[in-house]
Amino acid sequence: MHTDLLAHIARYVALAPAEAQLVRDHLVLQTVPRKAHLLVAGQPCCASYFVLHGCLRMYFITEKGTEQITRFALENWWLADYASLLSQRPSQFFVQAVEATTVSVLDYARQEELLARVPALERYFRLVLQRVAAADQTRPVFQFGLSAEELYHHFVASFPGFAQRVPQYMLASYLGFTPEFLSKIRARPPAGKAGPLGAQIS
Amino acid sequence: MHTDLLAHIARYVALAPAEAQLVRDHLVLQTVPRKAHLLVAGQPCCASYFVLHGCLRMYFITEKGTEQITRFALENWWLADYASLLSQRPSQFFVQAVEATTVSVLDYARQEELLARVPALERYFRLVLQRVAAADQTRPVFQFGLSAEELYHHFVASFPGFAQRVPQYMLASYLGFTPEFLSKIRARPPAGKAGPLGAQIS
Repeated sequence: MHTDLLAHIARYVALAPAEAQLVRDHLVLQTVPRKAHLLVAGQPCCASYFVLHGCLRMYFITEKGTEQITRFALENWWLADYASLLSQRPSQFFVQAVEATTVSVLDYARQEELLARVPALERYFRLVLQRVAAADQTRPVFQFGLSAEELYHHFVASFPGFAQRVPQYMLASYLGFTPEFLSKIRARPPAGKAGPLGAQIS
Repeated sequence: MHTDLLAHIARYVALAPAEAQLVRDHLVLQTVPRKAHLLVAGQPCCASYFVLHGCLRMYFITEKGTEQITRFALENWWLADYASLLSQRPSQFFVQAVEATTVSVLDYARQEELLARVPALERYFRLVLQRVAAADQTRPVFQFGLSAEELYHHFVASFPGFAQRVPQYMLASYLGFTPEFLSKIRARPPAGKAGPLGAQIS
């Protein structure tokens, strides 16, 4: 249980066996069917989720009533609404399973206790969050800097497996397109401009 | 020197006097005149900057040749290109002083050594980066969820001092408007819809 998370932690910091056991003791394994929600807007986000298997999406409902996807999380990615987690105010986001998904759940109320007992995890999460910040900073360069068509082809070239795995209408929402516009782009051959530029999908 | 940064750290973690001294020893104080650059695209980002006094902006040049501002940093904010910092590959961003600005500079090569000697800083930066993640996640809710006019009035209501401090053309770039469009919005009275919603400016 939680083996892939412990392996992920081991990439960044070394834990003693007793510390690894403490981590296991503080986690809950949860499997959610496709389309089930881990977080619903209006409720506070109470946990961080590490994807062991499957795929999650994070979205909010715009004033026009459409779903706007802001993040995906595949295997080995953490997902949480950090603003709600920190304030314990109602979240503006939904977190939903795109596929049947298994997650390691780190309850926020128990997180600080765990980190106090296993200080190496402070370093682990600092390094993980640095990568989140790097991805979030880079995203506007593609969003503002590339044409819609270049953005799509850049995304597919960077994450070929991912583009196959996620329904096209979700990909369209994430990229800020209508599904019709995405269909039109997909029907045309790529112009050969945008290659893998090292962006992140969440 | 670096007093405000040490006060900021003390909000999150307690440092022993010897640890605080180690922090001071690892920092460099730098004052840059208005319009001077701390980072130029094409060069790797080699440090994180904590604003003691003044204001920085982070921007990139789009393919159309226009400046797109992605972040501002006022007093008590950290700014760095984390993607470049982590990879030491050339940055895509510029970091420029909007006003004469004084920063505490934490050199990336020395950062890991400092954190190894003062482990409480792992916790400090983890907590700071959680807030960065919270701000980055919340931003699209306003960008996608509000009309351009609502977005501007929300921004001014949330950061009244800031909107006075930054030239209007920079505010327009950050919000994704043309300067002309921002002038038009400013000339109209607010519709009384968007209040302070707790967003962050960086």
